[in-house]
Amino acid sequence: MREFIKVKSAGFCFGVKRAVKLALKIAEKYNNKPIYTLGPIIHNKDVVDELKNKGIQVAENSDIKNSVVILRSHGVEKNVFEKLEKNNNIIIDAICPFVKKIHDCVNLLKKEDFFLVIIGDKEHPEVRAISSYADNGKYIVVSNVDEIKNKKLNYKKIGIVAQTTQSLENFLNICNELLKNKSEFRIFNTICDSTSIRQQETIEVAKKVDIMIVIGGKHSANTTRLAQLSKKILKDTYHIENEKEIEENWFKNKKKVGITAGASTPDYVIEKVIKKIRGIK
Amino acid sequence: MREFIKVKSAGFCFGVKRAVKLALKIAEKYNNKPIYTLGPIIHNKDVVDELKNKGIQVAENSDIKNSVVILRSHGVEKNVFEKLEKNNNIIIDAICPFVKKIHDCVNLLKKEDFFLVIIGDKEHPEVRAISSYADNGKYIVVSNVDEIKNKKLNYKKIGIVAQTTQSLENFLNICNELLKNKSEFRIFNTICDSTSIRQQETIEVAKKVDIMIVIGGKHSANTTRLAQLSKKILKDTYHIENEKEIEENWFKNKKKVGITAGASTPDYVIEKVIKKIRGIK
Repeated sequence: MREFIKVKSAGFCFGVKRAVKLALKIAEKYNNKPIYTLGPIIHNKDVVDELKNKGIQVAENSDIKNSVVILRSHGVEKNVFEKLEKNNNIIIDAICPFVKKIHDCVNLLKKEDFFLVIIGDKEHPEVRAISSYADNGKYIVVSNVDEIKNKKLNYKKIGIVAQTTQSLENFLNICNELLKNKSEFRIFNTICDSTSIRQQETIEVAKKVDIMIVIGGKHSANTTRLAQLSKKILKDTYHIENEKEIEENWFKNKKKVGITAGASTPDYVIEKVIKKIRGIK
Repeated sequence: MREFIKVKSAGFCFGVKRAVKLALKIAEKYNNKPIYTLGPIIHNKDVVDELKNKGIQVAENSDIKNSVVILRSHGVEKNVFEKLEKNNNIIIDAICPFVKKIHDCVNLLKKEDFFLVIIGDKEHPEVRAISSYADNGKYIVVSNVDEIKNKKLNYKKIGIVAQTTQSLENFLNICNELLKNKSEFRIFNTICDSTSIRQQETIEVAKKVDIMIVIGGKHSANTTRLAQLSKKILKDTYHIENEKEIEENWFKNKKKVGITAGASTPDYVIEKVIKKIRGIK
């Protein structure tokens, strides 16, 4: 009989759970109007398909008029928000409250005339949205400490925020380099705990099991990271998108199975994986 | 023939030069009134003696009345300042402007309800003065990262200032640890450039020589720090107050001699040390 240890914080984070729940509620309420999410609500095809079945379409751009528009957890650029409002849409705000807090920080730093450093990935929608609130243009996005090493930032006041999914290590490295400047700093550690907790718990479980199954999109940065961290502890780590990818021979002589999943993996996918493995002799 | 490499920025810093100059000027102006400095104007007996010759006494406590009182570069506790004013003294403010800036930072952080972390040595007069401005009691003094390691500081808003003579390394280590908290931070890098430049230049010289002589008061925090940093690079580092402490056997087989000095060491003391070492066979 195989034993399963599932990482407690595996799967959807608070912000995504909240957004999906809100979307499903909206689908019931506005069943006579076109409903859109601006971009996929989450990087998971199954969830997006489920929402489509309930009548929620994914809009590819912001040219939406006279509709219901759900803003996903990542947030949205300021000018896009204004455009959607102007075009007579009903806006449903499913932006993660932790992300919204970053927008508030940026507004405060802008008001107090700080030069803004956003620690994050320039092309990520969350960062694009955050940047849009620094609409005085006084900001840079830094993803890696090497980008600012030995560069003097000649600003009297430097404000720092981080994309919610940044690693603490990267955040501290970049702050460290910036703090060498003789400036006034206002720093908001806006990293979301759920990512680091999930990583930490995954490492703990990997230490206790014979095989580790990491479930999530192959393009999901946070799932890939979980697989890397697990692999450092346990060679027998497998990153899969769903139960179809499971191979029986992986489980030969493996008694204890660890299960974890990225932030975009719904519970039912995790359940299917466990069910499939239970069936393996 | 021995070679000497003297650290360019060795000796008096801007703030101390300014305070001594001001004291001498005051001695001329108020030659009919008792004149005191509150504590020695700098940690150097020779300089204090020179001032004594000009009629400037060192007061051991703040019970001074109807006199001229020179506040030294380190600054002074808020209540002491108030007491001196009340007791009909003429107060001559020779506090280093960089130290005064820290007092302003503390006032700002207090007003905006930040919990204050002062990075510095608890017993140092500069830090005692800085702390006195946090008269709401919401502060701690941290001299070493180990004092706060793995301790949660449960404050929503954390403000950080540093004693002017702290090393950048210590400042960054402590900031790094604090930044792990999910708080809002307001950080002022108040380390005085003259200190870090002197430290950096001392490290560079220590790498090039066979023996390092660090000149300055044994109780001078910044001199002690120079000696520590130098010792990390070069075991043969000696911290002396003046040329009388030099021992000939230190210099056996040492060709290149590095010389550095703390912020309170006057040039003529450095010159005497070099002269003495030149005389050693």
